[in-house]
Amino acid sequence: MEKIKVAILGATGMIGQRFIEMLEDHPYFEMEGLYASERSEGKSLRDVLKVRDYVYKEETLDTKIEVMDVSKIAKNCRIAFSGIPSDLAGPTETELAENGVGVFTNAGSHRMDADVPILIPEVNPDHLFSVKDQKTFSNGGFIITNANCSSTGIAAPLAVLRDTFGLEEAFISTYQALSGAGYPGVPSLDAVGNVIPYIGGEEEKMESELAKMLGTYENGKFNFAKFRTFANCARVPVVDGHLESLTLKLGSEPSVEEIIDAFEKFKGEPQLLDLPSAPPQPIIVRKEANRPQPAYDVFAGGTGRSKGMAVTVGRIRKKEEYYKIFALSHNTLRGGAGGSVLNAELAVKKGLI
Amino acid sequence: MEKIKVAILGATGMIGQRFIEMLEDHPYFEMEGLYASERSEGKSLRDVLKVRDYVYKEETLDTKIEVMDVSKIAKNCRIAFSGIPSDLAGPTETELAENGVGVFTNAGSHRMDADVPILIPEVNPDHLFSVKDQKTFSNGGFIITNANCSSTGIAAPLAVLRDTFGLEEAFISTYQALSGAGYPGVPSLDAVGNVIPYIGGEEEKMESELAKMLGTYENGKFNFAKFRTFANCARVPVVDGHLESLTLKLGSEPSVEEIIDAFEKFKGEPQLLDLPSAPPQPIIVRKEANRPQPAYDVFAGGTGRSKGMAVTVGRIRKKEEYYKIFALSHNTLRGGAGGSVLNAELAVKKGLI
Amino acid sequence: MEKIKVAILGATGMIGQRFIEMLEDHPYFEMEGLYASERSEGKSLRDVLKVRDYVYKEETLDTKIEVMDVSKIAKNCRIAFSGIPSDLAGPTETELAENGVGVFTNAGSHRMDADVPILIPEVNPDHLFSVKDQKTFSNGGFIITNANCSSTGIAAPLAVLRDTFGLEEAFISTYQALSGAGYPGVPSLDAVGNVIPYIGGEEEKMESELAKMLGTYENGKFNFAKFRTFANCARVPVVDGHLESLTLKLGSEPSVEEIIDAFEKFKGEPQLLDLPSAPPQPIIVRKEANRPQPAYDVFAGGTGRSKGMAVTVGRIRKKEEYYKIFALSHNTLRGGAGGSVLNAELAVKKGLI
Amino acid sequence: MEKIKVAILGATGMIGQRFIEMLEDHPYFEMEGLYASERSEGKSLRDVLKVRDYVYKEETLDTKIEVMDVSKIAKNCRIAFSGIPSDLAGPTETELAENGVGVFTNAGSHRMDADVPILIPEVNPDHLFSVKDQKTFSNGGFIITNANCSSTGIAAPLAVLRDTFGLEEAFISTYQALSGAGYPGVPSLDAVGNVIPYIGGEEEKMESELAKMLGTYENGKFNFAKFRTFANCARVPVVDGHLESLTLKLGSEPSVEEIIDAFEKFKGEPQLLDLPSAPPQPIIVRKEANRPQPAYDVFAGGTGRSKGMAVTVGRIRKKEEYYKIFALSHNTLRGGAGGSVLNAELAVKKGLI
Repeated sequence: MEKIKVAILGATGMIGQRFIEMLEDHPYFEMEGLYASERSEGKSLRDVLKVRDYVYKEETLDTKIEVMDVSKIAKNCRIAFSGIPSDLAGPTETELAENGVGVFTNAGSHRMDADVPILIPEVNPDHLFSVKDQKTFSNGGFIITNANCSSTGIAAPLAVLRDTFGLEEAFISTYQALSGAGYPGVPSLDAVGNVIPYIGGEEEKMESELAKMLGTYENGKFNFAKFRTFANCARVPVVDGHLESLTLKLGSEPSVEEIIDAFEKFKGEPQLLDLPSAPPQPIIVRKEANRPQPAYDVFAGGTGRSKGMAVTVGRIRKKEEYYKIFALSHNTLRGGAGGSVLNAELAVKKGLI
Repeated sequence: MEKIKVAILGATGMIGQRFIEMLEDHPYFEMEGLYASERSEGKSLRDVLKVRDYVYKEETLDTKIEVMDVSKIAKNCRIAFSGIPSDLAGPTETELAENGVGVFTNAGSHRMDADVPILIPEVNPDHLFSVKDQKTFSNGGFIITNANCSSTGIAAPLAVLRDTFGLEEAFISTYQALSGAGYPGVPSLDAVGNVIPYIGGEEEKMESELAKMLGTYENGKFNFAKFRTFANCARVPVVDGHLESLTLKLGSEPSVEEIIDAFEKFKGEPQLLDLPSAPPQPIIVRKEANRPQPAYDVFAGGTGRSKGMAVTVGRIRKKEEYYKIFALSHNTLRGGAGGSVLNAELAVKKGLI
Repeated sequence: MEKIKVAILGATGMIGQRFIEMLEDHPYFEMEGLYASERSEGKSLRDVLKVRDYVYKEETLDTKIEVMDVSKIAKNCRIAFSGIPSDLAGPTETELAENGVGVFTNAGSHRMDADVPILIPEVNPDHLFSVKDQKTFSNGGFIITNANCSSTGIAAPLAVLRDTFGLEEAFISTYQALSGAGYPGVPSLDAVGNVIPYIGGEEEKMESELAKMLGTYENGKFNFAKFRTFANCARVPVVDGHLESLTLKLGSEPSVEEIIDAFEKFKGEPQLLDLPSAPPQPIIVRKEANRPQPAYDVFAGGTGRSKGMAVTVGRIRKKEEYYKIFALSHNTLRGGAGGSVLNAELAVKKGLI
Repeated sequence: MEKIKVAILGATGMIGQRFIEMLEDHPYFEMEGLYASERSEGKSLRDVLKVRDYVYKEETLDTKIEVMDVSKIAKNCRIAFSGIPSDLAGPTETELAENGVGVFTNAGSHRMDADVPILIPEVNPDHLFSVKDQKTFSNGGFIITNANCSSTGIAAPLAVLRDTFGLEEAFISTYQALSGAGYPGVPSLDAVGNVIPYIGGEEEKMESELAKMLGTYENGKFNFAKFRTFANCARVPVVDGHLESLTLKLGSEPSVEEIIDAFEKFKGEPQLLDLPSAPPQPIIVRKEANRPQPAYDVFAGGTGRSKGMAVTVGRIRKKEEYYKIFALSHNTLRGGAGGSVLNAELAVKKGLI
């Protein structure tokens, strides 16, 4: 199969560079170009590197960053992966879709649009087909978003619980990593040895995005899920990896063992279709008393392309009718670029591209 | 007034050294000796210093640590402040009480004893008198505990809400500081850039201690409060200062402004009695979007003796019938040594000593 | 004595707020106003707080920040303490001096001017009088700088060694705190778990400023000291406190004990004159194997006004003809605002104001 | 070729687990067993995991840790890779060599032995053959050490400079990572936001090991190199990656460009022999103003097996006759387990095994 040409938008940022990481030697996709704003004109990826733990190939590091150019991208690429900051992404993504490009974006601009899905292949793979109702779809253009990083990390566990036991209430507190704020993001004097109990708009996003994702798409319309979500979001001095505490009221009262069993048995579409970036085990249950931890579990998912693509849960406890769980996911891989790459892999397998 | 002679137990630890900090030049108390285990024999405070931000007087730093000796302490001291680790404190504290010493302890050993109060002067000052029912009280000995550090930081706000609006459910997640684990405590390879979602026994302690403290003492018996608590406890890479997210169901549905008003108007016994370590404002409400933060609010309380003795709350939000609040307190001052010093000041003013 | 009215310039920054800390209840000075750029108009100190460890008085926190106004300052204040960023400070400070204000500044703009001293009262108190040769001195205006934070921390130890044993070569590596970069300064993604081996212009500044400070002022001219300095500067994830390693070639070969003795015996002008912010012991020698450390020694100096004003040295070793020493100082107190306050105290005592 | 069976000693520690990482799927070696002390009996690698950034294969994680057993190892393994703590390693390693096992060790116990080489294949590959003079060599047993982590990171750059320009004096200050102290190592209360200017014995080790490594082996005897080294060692809150500042006096005065050129042209034995773990470019020169940094350069070396095996240098400056350079290497890969694996690869290629 000839590889599909893709553009990376926002290539100077944390998410853009995670896109590049996930697309080096990808079996379906080939990077046509790295795009960013005019500020980075003339620089190479090497000059603007922000990802700490991945070692890019020399030729990738030497790639020049190009200034964003919708017509060039539309001409050369079937797909654009967008890591553009949310406050800027909207119009560019719309324009690309209008020009026939399939946009897989991490930006929040279009997430709550009436005809745009927030897609997580393990959670709501059928939402994929909502793109057929987008006006631009007839000429090949569309927009598919992934959820914000704090919602992604818990969407699959919540979906499994809902499907198995019912789900009524979720009280959530987050311990979110610094990379979620992008670069330069949080000043070090506010981050070192500190916790910031505020991330603008994040709590509202979690509450609305989870409801949309875990809802249904029927007759050209998204119906929001009915369970209630109460989120408290905070930033902690961790580089990568969002940890979240969940206190949940389910529709029934299973034992802790039944919950573990439901998580461990779960396989989603990416696993069934064997998508290249799919983690073999999408939800990993740790049995130790003190896990999951960002330091040790952030890269859970596999040794290759699916590194960092699993969600890890642990400390599953029951008190009265409530269940307490900690969940962790890599916010710029699973909860960022990796989510969109998996979405694109699903779209290819399902014949949308 | 002649100052009351006091012993500091566990003087080589974080809590012990906070006791020393709070008792330098204290108007009621005079340190008779610094005591610890045999391992520190012959060392001075200077040799075992662990508190980062306080500058002790030269003469205090030069004080020799003595090996714990109950009979010496009982002979010379009316009071012992105990910062002994909880797993070792129990028998020594009992023996001291039997020998006529008033023990104010930060250790957990006796907290759930049937005749021992968990005292926070702003929350349950009347529990003080439960000590009269302790067997050793007739010869002057007794034990008064302060709550564990994560309970202390939220007890006063919860008590104010209960008294003003009623309190039914509290969903709590903690962001607890490293100093709460003592020294050497958490290995740095587990702490730097990480969150550990487990603190042994902490969630159970929060749930039971809050119920005892916010309950009543009547006819020689503690009646536990009835509201329900669901705690998730985690350790973050912060040196001092426990932050906690609260999602609360109250007995009625006040506005956010009414809650702020209740917090700001609140004065407890320490404020009314003008105790030396009492913060003028026991609960400080921050109005900024992103507070309280350990870095900026941990020392809230006053410029002198009451530094670090206030609780700071912020981000008070209402969603449906639930209220979301972040609360912060200094875990080794307000939530540790400072709590016991305030308890002792109350006992003096109330004539128990 | 009536207190001297002073203005604080750059009151929204780290250094500006350390000035405020050091001038609350100062026996010589009274803050007339807090000044900053137009961006902070209408805000109070409380709104822009950046210092973590100091608890300001309520009335100070409530003080409104005013927009910088040279004529107002010149009319109302005898002195201006400047924490303006170095790239902006120059013209404003010049204008203030021309209008008869005595400027004590932490900014680097004027440090290498031919008629402006870099003053450290323990090191070169006689340089104070060089201001008499400034053109503006006749109408009361002048500029006195303190050294940059990395030079200040080692100037006194180097001066003592030079005076006692001679000084030929200094190989220096720095471990500098984040607060030295101001706010917002270093992005947290570059700071957490990292070291940045570059601080723009810092190595050159250290090399030239030390030579000027340790040189002489004679016949209206600064003669630079002749010893050679080779500096390597790096930023580490510490909030406050610059640590530096020194490998020194002296003019003779004293024993380590003789060096300790020289440091411990040393008293400078601030000690002899008993200046309010003078640490009783300007150079503290730690004998432990693993000190000085920012966490434990950054506030060395005293329990009151001189907290953080001493330099701490330790690990003094000799290998062949070289001496190895670690030195630490608080970069925004001793190495920042505190340095200028001490300079102003000296100027008052010496009758220049 | 049949793979050579190897034992991993100290498999519960940081270095032991880096050995495992480097030996998964190794083309020459096959892990026969993971060994540690009795404390870990019955545990699997999964239970004692300490490496943060590497994702082991499931089957490796499930491997049981065995209690150290010299006779079993001697029977089954040709090679033992030792990550035993230095204070315990000596006798076990000797016993293994006496039983015919080739020991490649990261422990310091035997480094200064008269007949044991400290081997870095890029620096002193000929020292390999010194093992032929070890008493145990006749029956196949021998001991080869790698240098301590802080020496390894600068040995190759120093060797290149010596060979090209001569080398006379090296003034070194280190910024060493927490993982260098092993686990549990440094308490977090001493690490977070702090620098510890002391690592027991480290400065002496650097000074003696560099002299031995950069010396010659002739007529059964190591002759130490003559250049002088002055080291200051400090621990910084970084997880992995030792940064070091070097101020060097060479035998001549090349331009900075000539030095860069010498580094970039350098290839050692591992590169010429194309050893599996050899980084293509053993010394990488960064041209940016602010590199190398642990966060961004610690994994330099390649995308596969040689990840983290290069040394990165940068900020090469000349002042008068001295050269200033910052160097960085991964202390538990290049400076730990990776060094010994590379040594073993060299021994295989050179026919010693």
